[in-house]
Amino acid sequence: MINEYIIKNKDRFLSELFDWLRIPSISADSQKKGDIRKAAGFLKQKLEEAGVDKVEICETKGNPIVYAEKIIDPSLPTVLVYGHYDVQPPDPLNLWNSPPFEPVIKDDKIYARGACDDKGQAYMHVKAFEAMTKLNLLTCNTKFMIEGEEEIGSDNLGIFVAKNKAKLQADVILISDTSLLSLENPSITTGLRGMGYIEVEVTGPNRDLHSGVYGGAVANPINVLCNMIASLHDEAGRINIPGFYDKVVELNDAERVAINTAPFDLNHYKNELGILETKGEQNYTTLERTGIRPTLDVNGIWGGYTGEGAKTVLPSKAFAKISMRLVPNQVSDEITALFTKHFLSLAPNSVKVKVTPLHGGEPAVTSTSSHAYKAASSAFEEVFHKTPIPTRDGGSIPIVALFKKELGLDTVLMGFGFDTDAIHSPNEHFGVKNFLLGIETIVSFYKHYSKK
Amino acid sequence: MINEYIIKNKDRFLSELFDWLRIPSISADSQKKGDIRKAAGFLKQKLEEAGVDKVEICETKGNPIVYAEKIIDPSLPTVLVYGHYDVQPPDPLNLWNSPPFEPVIKDDKIYARGACDDKGQAYMHVKAFEAMTKLNLLTCNTKFMIEGEEEIGSDNLGIFVAKNKAKLQADVILISDTSLLSLENPSITTGLRGMGYIEVEVTGPNRDLHSGVYGGAVANPINVLCNMIASLHDEAGRINIPGFYDKVVELNDAERVAINTAPFDLNHYKNELGILETKGEQNYTTLERTGIRPTLDVNGIWGGYTGEGAKTVLPSKAFAKISMRLVPNQVSDEITALFTKHFLSLAPNSVKVKVTPLHGGEPAVTSTSSHAYKAASSAFEEVFHKTPIPTRDGGSIPIVALFKKELGLDTVLMGFGFDTDAIHSPNEHFGVKNFLLGIETIVSFYKHYSKK
Repeated sequence: MINEYIIKNKDRFLSELFDWLRIPSISADSQKKGDIRKAAGFLKQKLEEAGVDKVEICETKGNPIVYAEKIIDPSLPTVLVYGHYDVQPPDPLNLWNSPPFEPVIKDDKIYARGACDDKGQAYMHVKAFEAMTKLNLLTCNTKFMIEGEEEIGSDNLGIFVAKNKAKLQADVILISDTSLLSLENPSITTGLRGMGYIEVEVTGPNRDLHSGVYGGAVANPINVLCNMIASLHDEAGRINIPGFYDKVVELNDAERVAINTAPFDLNHYKNELGILETKGEQNYTTLERTGIRPTLDVNGIWGGYTGEGAKTVLPSKAFAKISMRLVPNQVSDEITALFTKHFLSLAPNSVKVKVTPLHGGEPAVTSTSSHAYKAASSAFEEVFHKTPIPTRDGGSIPIVALFKKELGLDTVLMGFGFDTDAIHSPNEHFGVKNFLLGIETIVSFYKHYSKK
Repeated sequence: MINEYIIKNKDRFLSELFDWLRIPSISADSQKKGDIRKAAGFLKQKLEEAGVDKVEICETKGNPIVYAEKIIDPSLPTVLVYGHYDVQPPDPLNLWNSPPFEPVIKDDKIYARGACDDKGQAYMHVKAFEAMTKLNLLTCNTKFMIEGEEEIGSDNLGIFVAKNKAKLQADVILISDTSLLSLENPSITTGLRGMGYIEVEVTGPNRDLHSGVYGGAVANPINVLCNMIASLHDEAGRINIPGFYDKVVELNDAERVAINTAPFDLNHYKNELGILETKGEQNYTTLERTGIRPTLDVNGIWGGYTGEGAKTVLPSKAFAKISMRLVPNQVSDEITALFTKHFLSLAPNSVKVKVTPLHGGEPAVTSTSSHAYKAASSAFEEVFHKTPIPTRDGGSIPIVALFKKELGLDTVLMGFGFDTDAIHSPNEHFGVKNFLLGIETIVSFYKHYSKK
């Protein structure tokens, strides 16, 4: 029945999603406030059409949160669906094969910024809810909370959740913003890394100088910044910030073995990325390096002359954006403070250094023994005919830790993307099959979850 | 007589120079080919008006060279004036207090890109020549060779000089493209550093990745580039490239003492640059670090996300522009080859590295015992009432070594700018007084030089 409904409405589902994807709701770009509102308004209308009792655009200090609910029977369990309608910036634009905000289907995949992260995955929930309403299959109360600041740190969602605890009362949080290992090996994410994201500025002389006249005698802020960044890792690939690893939960051998049972082909991984060798912390596997170990990456760097040809400038300033992925039990604010203190201490007297934290989020681990996890597992089994593998993901959804703290709720991370979907990169995409199977699996989750 | 002529014509001189400065003849920018031609054409016309016998716009594979001559008597000595009409890019534009190509006078200084380097200084020669012609003071044959590629390596000038040795026959080269210590302490540059300018590209994965999904397991090209750059200097501020110092001429104690007799106030230097400490090679003074020691500076760096806010990208590529200033007897091609070999050897297997030499030039030292140097010294004495101090400059005019090699000619570096004129930087300027005194000193040089 659900299958038939999905097949019959597939074209409309995709056409609606495309309309949503066409709106460039980039939260990092302050010029896109109008598109942010447009994307929220579009979602509100679609939730109404899908059959919610009420839907609101909730104002915050930043981008609004779309909240909706349908209470069919207060005695039934309540599922709170979280997602986000904001997207990453599309840069570098020249590497996209088709414009990021003009979605197209190629090789049965939807190409667009936000196709997977997270408009495509959030929209599966809207359509699963529509199907259950129309087919009279809805067996849980349902709430939706879809925000517009996930890609910039969810600062205002935290405030919203803290202020609306009664309204958000539920039994479980359901999120689709993660990945499957593959369609043959479905998986459920049980761990997410936290994050500390920081911008640093190194200032040397008070103006750009001629590198011939001053070079060799005046500290070059780019060289200094490179030295400082280089010193943040040791030879073994460990992060050289005092106290950084103090709270990291080291897994025991059995737990490490379990993580490494996930199907993983290192050669395929390297070939797909076009690299000859992976690189990371010594004595850990690739799955461990991305799943259970903290990291530090420079996400952007700039300074001096970056145009065509040669300009012999000794610049006044150099900048970098640096993020750290955190694991249980690291605390974002604490790690950001350790970074700041250490980075300032690295600065030689010949320069000035400014450190600006941009955002942070906490790591999270979800239980595999909860009723909700089991319902999700059964749903995957029903649709994919295989028991899903629990995995630790490298990404961050800071709100998972917040839900636990503020609402006391566990989260089920039922994601349907692939790691290779190029989220945050040019040519982001999402399989049409993943989208449709996702809708089917979500409907199945409600069925299993209501059998409490 | 010459003084009166300068005073009478001052406004016209400046107004003509302003017209020239308004043409954005940026050689590094391939979009500015039209302005390059316009600047060359303007100069041709002004040389004609000043009284040369003939003037030509000589085509090269790149930007044209303006050549002019006036032969008054083949038995008299011939002065070959070299300069350049191309300018540095004006970036970063937002730091200019007035638009770079709309010259203005403020506090008796001309503010514009090229005001000092080198349009303003080259134009002193055009006006000195005009004055000598009109006042019947010209006592030397005069040739002009003003090129349009100095800021990008003078590649085609080398070919032009090699092909036109007969035409360029002369007794001395006269160049104004350097600095005075001050109006109270005039100086003549007797040494210039050479240069090797290189662009490097580090490629990690074949596309930008999500730093959460892949961070910690895949080499980040920005982090790798920072490591590679950091390793290029040791703790003592020496350059860590095997063979780099092999040919460097180490000065003896007496020579080092001589260099350090130039008036230099370290506190004033630091205050003027807004820095608390200088930084450079251990056991050398600031004057030595910029005058007689080679350097390595990153002139530009870029990679990843550099926009507003936070984007958690693990980028595919990172880039840097790196230049080395060379001293006698380092050879630009040799040093560039040493750099390239060493830099490639630094690359871990997890990335690919590409090294592209952009341009180079040889260091030069000029004699202080030549007749030409003595004539220049007398000219400064006559105009400034003080014997000029011989100084080693940190900048590079690669053509000086080429003139010696191809034409067998010595160069006199009679510059009238100040180190603080912000050449290559926002708010480049040139003192109106420097411009006018320069014209007077050049006229005096011809007088003394012809008394052979």
